[in-house]
Amino acid sequence: MDVPYKIYLSEDQMPRAWYNLRADMKNKPAPLLNPATGKPMTKQELCGVFCEELVEQELNDSTPYYSIPQAIRDFYRMYRPSPLVRAYCLEEKLQTPAHIYYKYEGNNSSGSHKLNSAIAQAYYAKAQGLKGVTTETGAGQWGTALSMACSYLGLDCQVYMVKVSYEQKPFRREIMRTFGASVTPSPSDTTQVGRAILEANPDTTGSLGCAISEAVEAALSQPGYRYVLGSVLNQVLLHQSVIGLEAKTALDLYRIKPDLIIGCAGGGSNLGGLIAPFMGEKLRGESDCRFIAVEPASCPSLTRGVFAYDFADTGRVCPLARMYTLGSGFIPAPNHAGGLRYHGMSPILSQLYHDGYLEARAVEQRAVFQAAEYFARVEGILPAPESAHAIRAAIDEALVCRQTGEAKNILFGLTGTGYFDMVAYQRFHDGEMTDSVPSDEELAASLASLPRL
Amino acid sequence: MDVPYKIYLSEDQMPRAWYNLRADMKNKPAPLLNPATGKPMTKQELCGVFCEELVEQELNDSTPYYSIPQAIRDFYRMYRPSPLVRAYCLEEKLQTPAHIYYKYEGNNSSGSHKLNSAIAQAYYAKAQGLKGVTTETGAGQWGTALSMACSYLGLDCQVYMVKVSYEQKPFRREIMRTFGASVTPSPSDTTQVGRAILEANPDTTGSLGCAISEAVEAALSQPGYRYVLGSVLNQVLLHQSVIGLEAKTALDLYRIKPDLIIGCAGGGSNLGGLIAPFMGEKLRGESDCRFIAVEPASCPSLTRGVFAYDFADTGRVCPLARMYTLGSGFIPAPNHAGGLRYHGMSPILSQLYHDGYLEARAVEQRAVFQAAEYFARVEGILPAPESAHAIRAAIDEALVCRQTGEAKNILFGLTGTGYFDMVAYQRFHDGEMTDSVPSDEELAASLASLPRL
Repeated sequence: MDVPYKIYLSEDQMPRAWYNLRADMKNKPAPLLNPATGKPMTKQELCGVFCEELVEQELNDSTPYYSIPQAIRDFYRMYRPSPLVRAYCLEEKLQTPAHIYYKYEGNNSSGSHKLNSAIAQAYYAKAQGLKGVTTETGAGQWGTALSMACSYLGLDCQVYMVKVSYEQKPFRREIMRTFGASVTPSPSDTTQVGRAILEANPDTTGSLGCAISEAVEAALSQPGYRYVLGSVLNQVLLHQSVIGLEAKTALDLYRIKPDLIIGCAGGGSNLGGLIAPFMGEKLRGESDCRFIAVEPASCPSLTRGVFAYDFADTGRVCPLARMYTLGSGFIPAPNHAGGLRYHGMSPILSQLYHDGYLEARAVEQRAVFQAAEYFARVEGILPAPESAHAIRAAIDEALVCRQTGEAKNILFGLTGTGYFDMVAYQRFHDGEMTDSVPSDEELAASLASLPRL
Repeated sequence: MDVPYKIYLSEDQMPRAWYNLRADMKNKPAPLLNPATGKPMTKQELCGVFCEELVEQELNDSTPYYSIPQAIRDFYRMYRPSPLVRAYCLEEKLQTPAHIYYKYEGNNSSGSHKLNSAIAQAYYAKAQGLKGVTTETGAGQWGTALSMACSYLGLDCQVYMVKVSYEQKPFRREIMRTFGASVTPSPSDTTQVGRAILEANPDTTGSLGCAISEAVEAALSQPGYRYVLGSVLNQVLLHQSVIGLEAKTALDLYRIKPDLIIGCAGGGSNLGGLIAPFMGEKLRGESDCRFIAVEPASCPSLTRGVFAYDFADTGRVCPLARMYTLGSGFIPAPNHAGGLRYHGMSPILSQLYHDGYLEARAVEQRAVFQAAEYFARVEGILPAPESAHAIRAAIDEALVCRQTGEAKNILFGLTGTGYFDMVAYQRFHDGEMTDSVPSDEELAASLASLPRL
């Protein structure tokens, strides 16, 4: 059966349930801890910050499937199923025997996969009768997705945006405004934690960790508000499993077994969602597929971090999570373009990496933009810098296949589009882009601040 | 049979031939005239400016179908078939009994339908052994599409971009550069005609008419180059018929007959392509579908222009076309956002309008952006300002149905995305956007310059 350029599922073939990978993990991700007591966060404690149903999803590591509410499935049908693309043009250009597939999540106005969890989180907030939600955003993809979802459901949406992205991507603010959200560059003087961070480091360009602290404080200080997060958390990976489930259904239609699955990894939302059902097979001993997390060399939590309990945020107002981390005070160099700026990594992915089920590699940003431009010219899609990390690794692996002659099936996640990243593309074209790799001393200093339990 | 949110055809169901609407027109569009002789342009004369195969397509008004070359069909498969969307959410929000459908052409990195003709024109240029092509672009969509197509085929691409768009959309230049094109703001001092226009009007913000003059001169002055155009011409409408053919196949699958088809109209490429097979049925007496062209009140060629021979460009270096025109010297007010800035209209659409087969209406831009924002929030797609003209009219017609209780089938063309139009969205949000309607005196003055034959 010939594989078409794009495999589209019918709406009937879309998943009716999210898959909870934790149910198949022998070593479960460690629980979140209350930093004051050192004990696992209770459901009640978490419900002060998060929506109730989401807390249930966060804590439940045994139920394998969660039925997707009809309203969320209806929203999904506005932009899903997303295409699984066979990269025939890229294969030909690379002269590789590998078969390359990518699951493309950029065909919606938020421009990325983030919408999959945004609508779920907004739905549960609305169902709980809340007035609004607060959040952080790095590159702006999550903030845009959440503002779309909130606008659809009539919820207020307050976004703290990492300052360097706010400045590099002036139009991101405007698209969030189109969807009715308010956007504040972070760190800001609108929160106590923001003022403290600014006082300690007035020139900081911000980080996801800072913005999370501010958004959490904003949620706690307004009645009828909760905080929502676009990555890292177990609940987010649960929602994002829709990516992997669709990809698996599409591949199964053509009896294709992936040998290698590649995704970019910042907090882990895309990678965790993409690999979920395939990793489930591996954990159950039904597959020997390999999985590669690709992270920026400027923020290498898996490849150079440590596996330890750490704060999820810079301001240390959030619970502790056991994860690969660079230290909650780590702030990547401002010359780094785009997202993937988070100091930690999803506890689920951290555990899988620790247990040897997941590989990781770090790539430098000029190599990433070379791959991005190459891909745009060959496949006709302008990728987000984040997504281009996965493209870089997929191209590298396809070139290995050219050497070895292996016709491997490579699947990677193309998480989104780069329309709001043209400043970074311009720097790349003008030869002004530099790589940025933290020194060992820098990392050691940052890791010295890990909490002692 | 329930209609899904999105009807995707399989790749096998994609058209294998373009449809040439002229074959079904009793009153054919008038031939292009040589301004020096007043006689129809010969094939030989046109081949100095355009590629040979495209000249054949331009002149042929009797062959109903043109087989689409395999290489173009392969390229189409990178981003086509495009979805036909049932706007369930919009219908519900409007509380209308109308069924609203839109053919969405924004799911490719050029962000619009323009790629359909760009790849065709680049293909024939390559097949003829040319080194490169020159063109103009207004809002930047055509230039982006052509640079993508040229990059794919390894052709040089030189783009003259209307100055006001070049300044309003700094990132458009960068995306064209990502695809390897060179971009010059027009009018420029790189051509004789550009220098003359600048001398006469140093503060001009440019127009498509100016940029066309410059691009034609650039093609004529470089060996191995030809000029290509993104709209107006018969050949472009031929290529764009792929939009309408796909839409018709998708609707036929569900036995849906549109009552009303709506498209925005600048030069006419999208509207002409979208309506082609449906208009063919009407011309053959097989349907009584209505067709509405929606144009900006700031550049109202159908609703306030005259049907006459006029120059296709401001610099008067191009052939004369018989079309609805505001005069080749007409330049829309600079506060007008986006494309649709052309003084004339496709000769095919002009003839259909003249003969009563096509209706037209003009809309003001604040009403257009209201519709754009409304649509974005409800349907989750951020539309281009051009596309939002059609959305405005579709919403208005759906509201009429709410009054009359009629369950009409309304189809409109959603030509592209607004990611590069955030400056205009920002002006709208900040209350700084104004409408701009030329006065009768302005139009009379512009029309006084029509050539006398």
